Amino acid sequence: MKKSLGAKTLLYPAPVLVVGTYDKADKANMMTASWGGICCSQPPCVAVALRKATYSYLNLMERKAFTISIPSENYVKEADYFGLVSGRTTDKLAATKLTAVRSKLVEAPYIKEFPLVLECKVIDIAEIGMHTQFVGEVLDVKAEDTVLGKDGAIDIRKLRPLVFTPDTQEYYGIGAFVAKVFSAGQGI
Amino acid sequence: MKKSLGAKTLLYPAPVLVVGTYDKADKANMMTASWGGICCSQPPCVAVALRKATYSYLNLMERKAFTISIPSENYVKEADYFGLVSGRTTDKLAATKLTAVRSKLVEAPYIKEFPLVLECKVIDIAEIGMHTQFVGEVLDVKAEDTVLGKDGAIDIRKLRPLVFTPDTQEYYGIGAFVAKVFSAGQGI
Repeated sequence: MKKSLGAKTLLYPAPVLVVGTYDKADKANMMTASWGGICCSQPPCVAVALRKATYSYLNLMERKAFTISIPSENYVKEADYFGLVSGRTTDKLAATKLTAVRSKLVEAPYIKEFPLVLECKVIDIAEIGMHTQFVGEVLDVKAEDTVLGKDGAIDIRKLRPLVFTPDTQEYYGIGAFVAKVFSAGQGI
Repeated sequence: MKKSLGAKTLLYPAPVLVVGTYDKADKANMMTASWGGICCSQPPCVAVALRKATYSYLNLMERKAFTISIPSENYVKEADYFGLVSGRTTDKLAATKLTAVRSKLVEAPYIKEFPLVLECKVIDIAEIGMHTQFVGEVLDVKAEDTVLGKDGAIDIRKLRPLVFTPDTQEYYGIGAFVAKVFSAGQGI
């Protein structure tokens, strides 16, 4: 029996995306966002939605560029911290002792220590409501050797990204392999 | 050391969303999509991106409404099947023996057997490239009692949603609890 929970953003799983931007003074800022996802295959695009009140929003409007650094489970403290404080008043990189690397493709920094990074150029901005959605074209993806399988593809068991749960506000890890895509359903 | 993987849609984790629509003849159709996510808190909105070639695209353009049914791990076969075949030529509900329920809020069907359902009204359509992004305002979320915790909130360990891996094209489950949001980072 289904129970109504009301009009809420309860979509599972939600990602944990650390959005990297530069401010006017070229100070690197990082902000954790879970409102986002892939939105186009060609050109390859991802979307992230931020509130206007965030420092990252101003940076994004100015630079029209961002990165997404994906934290592995062992960086949960740092990823959580990036969502706790504002770049207006804090140098979050200094506080976490993580390293901002300047992208050579877009005017935005990424986190050296995080295993997976997407460098994105803003190609669309949409005001939806409380959140503004930035669509970024992915110009390159960079991954640590340590998260790649023998075939050179990203192995999620090595990447160990975090899952965000909108209702209970928790982080979870990735579980076991379930099935291959376009294979599991062949029997039907 | 980071290695360049090129311009690709490698964002982790990606969700497994079963998009429900009606065609002109009121036939329920289901399609599995992983390009999507939450995009606004107020009004609560989610985005899903589909190719123009899909039958669901036509239905969405016509009805301006959709549902998202979230499969649990035990429905991986059915979820995968919904991404394998087209609603143009197949009655996917009949083939999977799953039940389409007509939403009372929007002109779209959802899957009775899946544990979590979002009923959405299209409020924005954006042509990005190969994919068209539909932003849906969530009018209600319905969940099975069996996936709720004692506090009435969705427990992801009971929901057991699937994770899609864009690079290796596999489904994974959800792993262990890692930390509370806005708590893990307090120590920094």
